[in-house]
Amino acid sequence: MPPITFRLARASDLSAILTLLADDAIAQARTGYTEEVSPSVRAAFDDISADPNNELIVGEQEGHVVATLQLTYIPGLSRGGMRRALVEAVRVRSDLRGQRIGEALMVDAMERSRARGCGLMQLTTDKLRHEAQRFYARLGFVASHEGMKRPL
Amino acid sequence: MPPITFRLARASDLSAILTLLADDAIAQARTGYTEEVSPSVRAAFDDISADPNNELIVGEQEGHVVATLQLTYIPGLSRGGMRRALVEAVRVRSDLRGQRIGEALMVDAMERSRARGCGLMQLTTDKLRHEAQRFYARLGFVASHEGMKRPL
Repeated sequence: MPPITFRLARASDLSAILTLLADDAIAQARTGYTEEVSPSVRAAFDDISADPNNELIVGEQEGHVVATLQLTYIPGLSRGGMRRALVEAVRVRSDLRGQRIGEALMVDAMERSRARGCGLMQLTTDKLRHEAQRFYARLGFVASHEGMKRPL
Repeated sequence: MPPITFRLARASDLSAILTLLADDAIAQARTGYTEEVSPSVRAAFDDISADPNNELIVGEQEGHVVATLQLTYIPGLSRGGMRRALVEAVRVRSDLRGQRIGEALMVDAMERSRARGCGLMQLTTDKLRHEAQRFYARLGFVASHEGMKRPL
């Protein structure tokens, strides 16, 4: 497999990232799904880039963005003032699955989070994503919590 | 019931907040549980206060801190660049439960999150906390996701 480099996303990656985010039946079923680099998506990218506690990561292989996730580093008083890392919007290009790209992406995210002093990593995954849950379990995640959401 | 004011936490609230966080069997069973305002807890408070996307809220009743939660506002590319609010470390003083203080605390958090442009609120709650899950369901949350965690 050609090597993959994980790095912070640039504005020029936005279209490729949106394509990855949209290449997903569950995401497509949600309200607000869009593949378009709209002004609000560009503003969100700027917000992420300006926030030292948010990192949008891409995996690049032979010049193409093939994977992405977002990390949020969250300070907190619990557990002796332990910082935690939240993972959102994890995607690997669908035609490249099964090559452990997702595992490398997550291992990279764990390394970044440890370097930022995080003692815990957490994420929520749709209960319909059984394959994703097995994937995270193999990486040491435990489904100890209910992930509850509501629109505002 | 005496009125409750919800406001940003101050450094002088730290000891009271830690007492609330510690007044909980599940939290006590975790590694790193502490009621002490240690240097690392104080540093975490400073990190929260310095981060414009984190807010530590307290509910104050007759001069006492009786409730707390933490809000993290997270920009993201998904759902058309929608911002989301993450809720962590929700507590109401145990002898005051059943008086809808938790509901008022959460409604205040939703108002803050809407004012910050968030279109979604999310949280994870330990699968052992059945009462909490019913509480959040009454407030419109749906347990659509698995909440997965791992130590780093």
